[in-house]
Amino acid sequence: MDPSTVVHFMDTDDFLKHWQGHRALTRRVIEAFPDEHLFTFSIGGMRPFGELVQEMLGIAVPMVRGMITDEWTEFSDGTASSKKELLRLWDADTKALDELWPSVPKARFAETFTSFGQYTGPGYEQLLYAMDNEVHHRGQGTVYLRALEIEPPAFWER
Amino acid sequence: MDPSTVVHFMDTDDFLKHWQGHRALTRRVIEAFPDEHLFTFSIGGMRPFGELVQEMLGIAVPMVRGMITDEWTEFSDGTASSKKELLRLWDADTKALDELWPSVPKARFAETFTSFGQYTGPGYEQLLYAMDNEVHHRGQGTVYLRALEIEPPAFWER
Repeated sequence: MDPSTVVHFMDTDDFLKHWQGHRALTRRVIEAFPDEHLFTFSIGGMRPFGELVQEMLGIAVPMVRGMITDEWTEFSDGTASSKKELLRLWDADTKALDELWPSVPKARFAETFTSFGQYTGPGYEQLLYAMDNEVHHRGQGTVYLRALEIEPPAFWER
Repeated sequence: MDPSTVVHFMDTDDFLKHWQGHRALTRRVIEAFPDEHLFTFSIGGMRPFGELVQEMLGIAVPMVRGMITDEWTEFSDGTASSKKELLRLWDADTKALDELWPSVPKARFAETFTSFGQYTGPGYEQLLYAMDNEVHHRGQGTVYLRALEIEPPAFWER
């Protein structure tokens, strides 16, 4: 593309802030689940919300760490099995993301690489995928909450 | 922020491409719904998927047009009532987004404004909201599909 037509959309700190806003909302959705349903309740054969959150944990920090070190293990979900443990891991990763972020080499956001040994694309697309996947699965979790007659936290509050 | 620390995440054309990728997937989710369930099937008192899609239509093109003209009407959903009509509107808006995009003034993406008379924030955040809201509601639609014993289109295909 002719560089004169490139218009800046957002910078990397804007993205982290936006993602952490989503992560704060996802935390509230985890909290809204009754303990006894978080790892068991399901619709149509789908994974319970606790397992979907473990997938998110398996992507977020490992992705950012991989962008820094270029070391990728095979993708794996987390291992929490209670709401308390899941929230503890979530909070630790919120902190880790903020701490790791400044160490991501600037060039990595535009550079194409393969994450987890299988997903190839530019860094910004890989990060968008991590965030979109969280929004997607959290949306599914809100249907579980509604089916359990629990009002989900408001989508627009971050 | 010290401008020397600002790192470019993506440009506006990257964002449009990413959003249109999501919109292509949302189109496949609409297509996957049986006609008789699109505007009727619901879980936990939520809106049927057809109504959620009308909300998306009420946001996307009106948002981009508003960024160009600074004319905002009150937010309103679309008026389709069949799958065929919904897909026709969806395709027209896919084309309209591509056509309108180059006319958004460059400054608008960073500028803070109020959309639809009520949402205030910088342009890039407003556009992210439009996309995130689509991903969120589409995720909900995929639970409806699973509950109807229909396999949803793959999330990672765009």
